Amino acid sequence: MPPLTIIIFGASGDLTSRKLIPALFHLDMAGLLPDDANIVGVARRPFSNDAFRSSVEPMTREAMLSMGESWFPGAWNRFAKRLFYVAGDATTTEGLQHLTEFLQKREGTTGGQRLYYLSVSPDLYPQIAARFGEAGYEKEIGGFRRVVIEKPFGHNLETGRAVNKSLHACFREDQIYRIDHYLGKETVQNILIFRFANTMFEPLWNHQYIDHVQITAAEKVPVGKRGGYYNDSGVLRDMFQSHLLQVVTMVAMENPGRYTADRLRNEKIKVLEAMKISKVEDAFNNIAVGQYDGYRNEEGVPKDSKTPTYAAIRLEIDNGRWSNVPFYVRSGKSMRSRYSEVSIQFRCPPHMLIPMPPGETLECNHLSLILQPNEGIRLNFQTKVPEVDGTRLQARDLAFDYRDAFTERALPEAYERLLLDAIMGEATLFMRNDEIEQAWEIMDPLIAATEAANAPQPEVYAPGSDGPKCADALLAKEGRKWQKIR
Amino acid sequence: MPPLTIIIFGASGDLTSRKLIPALFHLDMAGLLPDDANIVGVARRPFSNDAFRSSVEPMTREAMLSMGESWFPGAWNRFAKRLFYVAGDATTTEGLQHLTEFLQKREGTTGGQRLYYLSVSPDLYPQIAARFGEAGYEKEIGGFRRVVIEKPFGHNLETGRAVNKSLHACFREDQIYRIDHYLGKETVQNILIFRFANTMFEPLWNHQYIDHVQITAAEKVPVGKRGGYYNDSGVLRDMFQSHLLQVVTMVAMENPGRYTADRLRNEKIKVLEAMKISKVEDAFNNIAVGQYDGYRNEEGVPKDSKTPTYAAIRLEIDNGRWSNVPFYVRSGKSMRSRYSEVSIQFRCPPHMLIPMPPGETLECNHLSLILQPNEGIRLNFQTKVPEVDGTRLQARDLAFDYRDAFTERALPEAYERLLLDAIMGEATLFMRNDEIEQAWEIMDPLIAATEAANAPQPEVYAPGSDGPKCADALLAKEGRKWQKIR
Repeated sequence: MPPLTIIIFGASGDLTSRKLIPALFHLDMAGLLPDDANIVGVARRPFSNDAFRSSVEPMTREAMLSMGESWFPGAWNRFAKRLFYVAGDATTTEGLQHLTEFLQKREGTTGGQRLYYLSVSPDLYPQIAARFGEAGYEKEIGGFRRVVIEKPFGHNLETGRAVNKSLHACFREDQIYRIDHYLGKETVQNILIFRFANTMFEPLWNHQYIDHVQITAAEKVPVGKRGGYYNDSGVLRDMFQSHLLQVVTMVAMENPGRYTADRLRNEKIKVLEAMKISKVEDAFNNIAVGQYDGYRNEEGVPKDSKTPTYAAIRLEIDNGRWSNVPFYVRSGKSMRSRYSEVSIQFRCPPHMLIPMPPGETLECNHLSLILQPNEGIRLNFQTKVPEVDGTRLQARDLAFDYRDAFTERALPEAYERLLLDAIMGEATLFMRNDEIEQAWEIMDPLIAATEAANAPQPEVYAPGSDGPKCADALLAKEGRKWQKIR
Repeated sequence: MPPLTIIIFGASGDLTSRKLIPALFHLDMAGLLPDDANIVGVARRPFSNDAFRSSVEPMTREAMLSMGESWFPGAWNRFAKRLFYVAGDATTTEGLQHLTEFLQKREGTTGGQRLYYLSVSPDLYPQIAARFGEAGYEKEIGGFRRVVIEKPFGHNLETGRAVNKSLHACFREDQIYRIDHYLGKETVQNILIFRFANTMFEPLWNHQYIDHVQITAAEKVPVGKRGGYYNDSGVLRDMFQSHLLQVVTMVAMENPGRYTADRLRNEKIKVLEAMKISKVEDAFNNIAVGQYDGYRNEEGVPKDSKTPTYAAIRLEIDNGRWSNVPFYVRSGKSMRSRYSEVSIQFRCPPHMLIPMPPGETLECNHLSLILQPNEGIRLNFQTKVPEVDGTRLQARDLAFDYRDAFTERALPEAYERLLLDAIMGEATLFMRNDEIEQAWEIMDPLIAATEAANAPQPEVYAPGSDGPKCADALLAKEGRKWQKIR
């Protein structure tokens, strides 16, 4: 096999030292990185190879320790020999000159395999793709050329399409790996396994037994230093357009038959296409937005910002499986805790063998797939209270915890999984162009409603709370309520 | 309300001091015994009230401590004042004389409520019922008259019918409380709650999703000093005719609609009536028997005994829900551990999203309702192994433990539940005459086959093992195997 080069553009950035290099080092330690793989950091300012190596070491060490691993200086030193640095600016033709020379020298006439990782501002994707095209970076001489990019993929449907178009001007769709790090999470991948490798759940997984679905991605942190970026984006673009709609597709999709990239993405797009598109003027029937108290004082945030830092939306999937089963999805910053889960609320039993005492109502079964931080599964069911007189019911959990069930290993980091998949050409967990565009189609009217000149102010909520009251009202008007954020 | 008297016949026996008095004392401590309730011990040899009180104290104390309770001498002394002793022989007319006088004195002309507990050899039930009839003990003067009896209810269908007939010569059926202490177990009662107070399980609870059912009642102890009694009975009468067929009915019954004695028993009898009755000559197609090594050296056991101390039987329930779903039931003495469970083996998923590696087969979902000793529920399901490369499946458990889930209370003793129910006239957990007879109908040909003159010797199995190999073969011939005894 020709040699593999992983080229990270934006190598001086935070993501490189915080996530990408630690992930590659950990893969190397596990013996999963090809022997001949080199990693080339590219950024504008000049750096020696050694200076680059030293600059990424502290964060890598920190990442390893926070994963519960030891720090092995010998292993790091061997890995660091794979690291190189080439100064360059991928937005200009001449800026790629040194890199091209480096790669030609490394690959010679036989060519090689290249993974381009664009850890740069997404605004630059079109320009960089154009420069790549000019430099022939997409031509698969001696091996694959793949490009890995991260959200945001545009700012709305129109710009989303433009980004795809500019990428396609250089790369074939199957050369493009759009990361959604949520899909790299073990718990998100396990949704499909849970549904389709078990007999017990799929027969129940439809409108006949499910009342509604709740998806929560609560963050405890405020926007912090990202205020400038965040204020242009808001929670609807930042969390819903990509991560949360992706989670919805994993919960809602039909069985793809085979666990391959296109089979899976064909089923995901079917879910997105089945989602009812709101009209801008009706949007507030299906959305509730909030802004945490203090947001407008964050660095880079205008004092009159109407950007939502919290949103709850109600989605309908217009197909036979999900008829009349709303999906309620919520996410916010500065909330009570960091907690993400998929909660399947089952309908109540059609008949009560033991009637509830007057004034009490049965807590009907629900299933929590806890995505983070205490990854696990909780199946809340009714059981008899162990007592000698009478027969009372109470709800308890059937519980599964990843960390208790698999004690011999840490849960893998999403970036490790996704980097390795991109190297291996396994695109199952990456998003296709049509998914991106369809997701914008769904989100655009909701975003437009919140950004209209006459849009109401988002309801202010207290930092450390469960979000604004209007989100509760969104469910209450249909006689439902949110699961507790644990 | 007229005063309640609980009359225990066989008061000098083991059950009285080991189970009944501790259960009544514990009920009293919980405030569940009516204020005016007295307990009268009856046995042949003379005893003073005080001597009786002293004689039952040590075992009661031991029972309380073994439940994790403290021993409260003050509470005991107050309770002991409720205890009386009357010498008498219930098998003779004159033997009831003193008791009748005692009760008349206590109840006066207004009468009272009486619970007769026959803690005597079941051979004596017909005689005692006749004497009761002569003494008018069934007449409900001022309150109920109920009689509590324990298995064995006869030795086969014919004698079982005779016992019922003799009881009915004195008592109405609704005055007769036939204890099966398995039905008093929390975990057995919870089978119906689990099935019918939850949405998730009932849709799966049929031949479409269930491959087969296994019910295990393994005992670690050998027969010990009970050899004489046991050898006449054998495991098929001792465990299957009552306890285990009762558990089968709880697993298999239709929804009784209401949790009342007759609704429940009407559904239980439907299950028993739907069971296919084996012919004696075909019995060994559906049964495997064993005898533990050393059984014939137990006290009271003949050296050439063919009595099985282990049996596994295959039952078929001939109705729409359970078509082609065998129930495999096994029980034995001197096995690896004390362990009882109901295990529901689900069918495999109809299609594998992720094919198994060559040579590996999927462990399909199963649900264990652990009846004792570590009471709980285990739902074994497939989950993704958390690792960065590939997508492998492994089985893990969703788990529920009674003792972890309800830390504030000990699991109640079956006898407490059943005694209180009998006092309250709650017959849900007691067996009706038709159930007893139908259970004999099912067991008789199987028992007859093992007791025939030309019956094969039961296969010898090692004490502390999982039972004889022929039991494995019973399942293996249908391509199945037993769950591990934990």
